[in-house]
Amino acid sequence: MEKLVALCKRRGFVFPSSEIYGGLNGLWDFGPLGVELKRNIKELWWRSMTQLREDIVGLDGSILMNRAVWKASTHEEQFVDWLVDCKTCKARFRVDHLAEARCPLKPSKHPGECGGEMTEPRRFNLLFRTYVGPLEEESALTYLRPETAQAMFVQFRNVLETSRKKIPFGIAQIGKSFRNEVNPRNFLFRSREFEQMEVEYFIRPGTGLEELEKWKEARLAWYESIGLPRHRIHVRDVPEGERAFYSEKTYDLEYTFPFGRQELEGIAYRTDFDLRQHGAASGKPLDYFDEETGQKYIPHVIEPSGGVDRTFLAILCEAYDEEDVAAEGGKVEKRVVLRLSPRVAPIKAGVFPLVKNNEALVRKAREVADLLRMHLRIFYDESGAIGRRYRRMDEVGTPFGVTIDFETLEGARSGAFAGEKETVTVRERDSMRQERVRIAELLEFLRLRVS
Amino acid sequence: MEKLVALCKRRGFVFPSSEIYGGLNGLWDFGPLGVELKRNIKELWWRSMTQLREDIVGLDGSILMNRAVWKASTHEEQFVDWLVDCKTCKARFRVDHLAEARCPLKPSKHPGECGGEMTEPRRFNLLFRTYVGPLEEESALTYLRPETAQAMFVQFRNVLETSRKKIPFGIAQIGKSFRNEVNPRNFLFRSREFEQMEVEYFIRPGTGLEELEKWKEARLAWYESIGLPRHRIHVRDVPEGERAFYSEKTYDLEYTFPFGRQELEGIAYRTDFDLRQHGAASGKPLDYFDEETGQKYIPHVIEPSGGVDRTFLAILCEAYDEEDVAAEGGKVEKRVVLRLSPRVAPIKAGVFPLVKNNEALVRKAREVADLLRMHLRIFYDESGAIGRRYRRMDEVGTPFGVTIDFETLEGARSGAFAGEKETVTVRERDSMRQERVRIAELLEFLRLRVS
Repeated sequence: MEKLVALCKRRGFVFPSSEIYGGLNGLWDFGPLGVELKRNIKELWWRSMTQLREDIVGLDGSILMNRAVWKASTHEEQFVDWLVDCKTCKARFRVDHLAEARCPLKPSKHPGECGGEMTEPRRFNLLFRTYVGPLEEESALTYLRPETAQAMFVQFRNVLETSRKKIPFGIAQIGKSFRNEVNPRNFLFRSREFEQMEVEYFIRPGTGLEELEKWKEARLAWYESIGLPRHRIHVRDVPEGERAFYSEKTYDLEYTFPFGRQELEGIAYRTDFDLRQHGAASGKPLDYFDEETGQKYIPHVIEPSGGVDRTFLAILCEAYDEEDVAAEGGKVEKRVVLRLSPRVAPIKAGVFPLVKNNEALVRKAREVADLLRMHLRIFYDESGAIGRRYRRMDEVGTPFGVTIDFETLEGARSGAFAGEKETVTVRERDSMRQERVRIAELLEFLRLRVS
Repeated sequence: MEKLVALCKRRGFVFPSSEIYGGLNGLWDFGPLGVELKRNIKELWWRSMTQLREDIVGLDGSILMNRAVWKASTHEEQFVDWLVDCKTCKARFRVDHLAEARCPLKPSKHPGECGGEMTEPRRFNLLFRTYVGPLEEESALTYLRPETAQAMFVQFRNVLETSRKKIPFGIAQIGKSFRNEVNPRNFLFRSREFEQMEVEYFIRPGTGLEELEKWKEARLAWYESIGLPRHRIHVRDVPEGERAFYSEKTYDLEYTFPFGRQELEGIAYRTDFDLRQHGAASGKPLDYFDEETGQKYIPHVIEPSGGVDRTFLAILCEAYDEEDVAAEGGKVEKRVVLRLSPRVAPIKAGVFPLVKNNEALVRKAREVADLLRMHLRIFYDESGAIGRRYRRMDEVGTPFGVTIDFETLEGARSGAFAGEKETVTVRERDSMRQERVRIAELLEFLRLRVS
């Protein structure tokens, strides 16, 4: 894990937020490569949900919502951690993270502390509070949303009427959520600001368990498509005591991170709890008339709720690899390689002139770069030995390296294209195998392999 | 404007946030079509900045940042409106929005009010406040970012070192920002939560005015590429008194909305103010060693700062059109059409079986839909007369309608494909012209015209 965090910092995937001011605990910025990896994850999810399926439409709701939403959803009352304080040193802990009855801080690490007596547990609400409008008064209070889900429930009627969908249908949303975690930890895994990708899928009462199974399969297939194979994801049938009281059945999709097996996505059959609550609280019943059955009912809901940042982290953990490879002079060298699926890789191809002090090579390499750039995210690099340039791309998961060499200008020396000009060397990241490809066929060659 | 707001609601572009609870002033949700239009705008901006240019990289910073950022940026002290209250009815106004010295509320509209005497003007800070961590105390206070820009300044060093860029280079970011506006108004134009697309472009001292001109041209070209022609955008050279005190020159790109000519994007030459402030405040100098000149300096900055929501609104205003068209029985009908650039249109093509009670037609139409769906965002519709289906697509700006008709199954009756099966009718939105296209060539036909 430490290696991964260091790689993320060193290569521009993830930086601590506001780092020059000492950061802010549990908040992260995505750097030049991180933002592309994250965008790819979101884009593939969005495409799979809204473009490829006829039964789901998108939504992009605001982060600040009317406080009544959070009363009806029970977040204002129930979205709490139980905390205790040390009476001696005032340190604060989550009760469920505490193994001992007394303050666990050790004097050796924290001079003057501790082992003190703890207070009785108290409730701490995880909602970030803020005031909308010029007055800081109760009537102006609201919260940063702790989940994207609620916008999809409260806009159920608007979406239904404008999209003319029939049940079963779903609403998909990607967006930021905020939880005032007491102890953010494990890098991106538990942070105070994070991004969710959630679907609320509205179904006929009585079909919940069956639809839940379909969603479990659909989600596993999606993770597989972005580089998290099915056998690496553990499906946990969440037992009754741990489920929300209204959920009839919930699956957690779990991934084994370096810090343990943890939830990547929850897929919950939520019955009609959400629409019933908001219908009652707002006085605007969120029911549905089913033309096929002639019945009126409050739709039930399946909610596959994934974390963008957790998926990002799992993908990096899964992709990270080190291996010994042969280097110059018969030596052995360590190669760090991110074996990312080409679909999510931030850069699809590196483009390199073999050397930078040959004008014709550089010109041709720039031509190839310009050609590819219109269609793919590429990285042009002319500095350093070619082997070093390959390594730099390996480390950030770039699946292909395209080298413009002397054979490009003078004709290939051997192989299928012997004597032919205008070919380049394409090196594949994982196998490090190289093959010659015609420039005229290069774009199609790469496109096929990265989408 | 009223027509546009109504269309946005009726067709699922924009809904008031939390509408079933009476909404929350200045907050909006983007519905199924709105979210796609917005995504297209953002995607085209992102592509133009980070994929097509070698000198700009992306960033995705957190919304919550260390409070020290907002002290150094002067927002904590200076980001204020001047407000007055009515001593009689307690209503609150921005001084610069008030034409009269006494309360402007009229008893006829607001029973019991007013015309009362006003208080002295007081400062009101537009930052949304919140507390990070379990204690609501001064040391835990921070703000929702009022602009995305600051993350790019405080991460300057991290980005520079990990991306190995040389000046001139830029950082691009798209993300939500929040301003606690006293009077949100004009639909999406002035809201409390909005999305920005900003670049901070770092340059050599002395090159600011020249680089500013280049950016002005680049941005005008971009707006043109998404359907806002150059002659519709007014370039305003912001006079000294209105510019930020550190800005040597600023252009506002303005669009004439139904409610007046207003700013779409500001392009400011900010000198070295930002990096100098943060360098001094953090004690971590944000300077740059220029290998070419052998000099060390604090880079100067050009900031093209666009609003996603404002661009969204301008695009809709520009595209909205009504015209009289011939209808059945020699009648004339009003057609509402959004003449959106195909590049930003939420749906690229409607796919229709001519009638829905013919199994072979429906099957073929579904086949065509499935073929296109893999590559383009399409909408399959079989309900109602074909003319009505075209109108529904016109109203949301879908550039093409693909109809599978009897000639598809039986062979074209006339024209270039006479006698040939497996062709469809493609109708173009603006001209309403129809032409036959081979199914085998349909995807390429559409792709060429929508990208």
